[in-house]
Amino acid sequence: MARVYNFSAGPAALPEAVLKQAQEEMLDWRGSGMSVMEMSHRGKEFMSIAQQAEADLRELMAIPDNYKVLFLQGGATSQFAMVPLNLIGRTGKADYMNTGSWSKKAIAEARRYGDVKVIADTYVDDSFTSEPAAGSLAISADAAYVHYTPNETIEGVEFSYIPETGDVPLVADMSSTILSRPLAVSRFGIIYAGAQKNIGPAGLTITIVREDLIGNAMDHAPTMFKYETHAGADSMYNTPPTYGWYLAGLVFQWLKAQGGLAGMAAINERKAKALYGAIDDSGFYNNPVDRNCRSWMNVPFTLADPDLDARFLSEAAEAGLKTLKGHRSVGGMRASIYNAMPEDGVKALIDFMAEFERNNG
Amino acid sequence: MARVYNFSAGPAALPEAVLKQAQEEMLDWRGSGMSVMEMSHRGKEFMSIAQQAEADLRELMAIPDNYKVLFLQGGATSQFAMVPLNLIGRTGKADYMNTGSWSKKAIAEARRYGDVKVIADTYVDDSFTSEPAAGSLAISADAAYVHYTPNETIEGVEFSYIPETGDVPLVADMSSTILSRPLAVSRFGIIYAGAQKNIGPAGLTITIVREDLIGNAMDHAPTMFKYETHAGADSMYNTPPTYGWYLAGLVFQWLKAQGGLAGMAAINERKAKALYGAIDDSGFYNNPVDRNCRSWMNVPFTLADPDLDARFLSEAAEAGLKTLKGHRSVGGMRASIYNAMPEDGVKALIDFMAEFERNNG
Repeated sequence: MARVYNFSAGPAALPEAVLKQAQEEMLDWRGSGMSVMEMSHRGKEFMSIAQQAEADLRELMAIPDNYKVLFLQGGATSQFAMVPLNLIGRTGKADYMNTGSWSKKAIAEARRYGDVKVIADTYVDDSFTSEPAAGSLAISADAAYVHYTPNETIEGVEFSYIPETGDVPLVADMSSTILSRPLAVSRFGIIYAGAQKNIGPAGLTITIVREDLIGNAMDHAPTMFKYETHAGADSMYNTPPTYGWYLAGLVFQWLKAQGGLAGMAAINERKAKALYGAIDDSGFYNNPVDRNCRSWMNVPFTLADPDLDARFLSEAAEAGLKTLKGHRSVGGMRASIYNAMPEDGVKALIDFMAEFERNNG
Repeated sequence: MARVYNFSAGPAALPEAVLKQAQEEMLDWRGSGMSVMEMSHRGKEFMSIAQQAEADLRELMAIPDNYKVLFLQGGATSQFAMVPLNLIGRTGKADYMNTGSWSKKAIAEARRYGDVKVIADTYVDDSFTSEPAAGSLAISADAAYVHYTPNETIEGVEFSYIPETGDVPLVADMSSTILSRPLAVSRFGIIYAGAQKNIGPAGLTITIVREDLIGNAMDHAPTMFKYETHAGADSMYNTPPTYGWYLAGLVFQWLKAQGGLAGMAAINERKAKALYGAIDDSGFYNNPVDRNCRSWMNVPFTLADPDLDARFLSEAAEAGLKTLKGHRSVGGMRASIYNAMPEDGVKALIDFMAEFERNNG
């Protein structure tokens, strides 16, 4: 068996140690005689798994006590509706920043439920390659919340700062940046993330919500789309995605063993600097994003000659470097280097890129 | 390692052969160098897994071509809202049957979106133990659909017939009976099921929907709650629960190896007859459900002396027979004997029950 380096943007690589533990425990979790996925979610075995995972996440992110942590389904795309359904009612208005493909989808869904004002828009010449200047943000006093996407997975743009929104709650889609570095959770009203990038397998969504924002859902919101439904039932109003929850817990334990988020941040910064450095030092590869807001997690790059893209991808795959194709909307390549991508994987990519340039440059 | 017989109502036991295959493939699916849960859902490896699973389900259930099969999230509880949000708009009215705890929840959610008429109600003396007489059902001519729950997981009541609803689409929550026996899919407008009983792990929901019922969602329905969103994108509008989809596919392969649904039905009928026979033949155990509508999948039973419940449960667990506690709303015991419960497991339970009666009767 040969494991590859998998640069998929999501579902993405998981730590090998986590997969090995899941493999060992697949037929019998710690003498229970059952797989975790066979356990009643209300039994004492799974309850202990669920509670430990939440406790570890709270510790890793230093989540204050006045925030609920919800283990949900439906992906960030469901949150695009849940956020306005639960929050916009107070004033009927919300501010959004348009900084990439995922921002755009969040805005489109929110417009269906209220008056959305786009307070920042970095779409220029058919692409998103920058962040709005912090001083340029004019938050509406009557906005029920401000929504933004700290890391745009497709464009590889990551905010270098947390927007200051005063008393207006800040809501963030952190799907592709959560757990990559320490974060001041208290600056946010809601943080949400699909699991399949930096948390665990697809099918689990984590939403961290300040308690005072719970309980104001629109009348027509489906019961399953109200935060209060899940907050009031410890995320077990109905059967949660138990196996994903368990795997997320294994990832949290692994993160603690790496030195927590400070430890991960140091590793992630080294990985990103090495890869962007290799791109910038070459005349063959290019990353179009402003240097102050390049993502640590998603690194898009193009080849000098797009006709070489197919050869690059096939030779990379032969070298054990997979899923490097860029999103169809931006083209070229994309290397997603989430927490689970080891430094050796980034080094292998850089070496391959150099060799490919020598052979084709 | 000692595997137990796990009688959980859901999440429930999975076939051991399926778990073993998942274990083997955990770090490397067929030479791909990746776990299935690490694969991009749009890559050719996962696409082949997804398509094979759907093809196998279509073959097993003989699903006609004019039905879409959707691989969703959110459980049957999300369908309680999705069904009215997508269907009730045509007339604003729907007929529901109230035959157990899950019917009741479906009715409560549907009332939030339209005018619900309860055309059958079997709630008598604080319990549900019967099915409505087929001839007693008066379907409303202006109902947008008729909803019922063919198998009530908590009460162990299973319809002995498919209701005749003429031109009004019939909608069924089949979470705990799907795949347990052959079914005339063409009699239904929509069939939905949470996976965690007879399909796979929690976090996957399968909805089989007749194509002409797609496309009429209410204006305020979240995009993720519209059938058209998922039907138009082969269930990949956003990232689906890929690992659950894969495991469901392994279960479908396993079912085919058991002789398909006809083969499973023969096994399931034998298991149910043996267990109900043991209960009826004793003066010590009792099942309250009318004999014509006893569930093949969920067998609730009580002990002559409820003070012995705790001893029964602890001695059963010691004997490797787990998760037999009945739902808190009905008390006593419940043995869920889904497809994955082998006949040997039912025999072990019957033997244990006889011994317990000898020692305590």
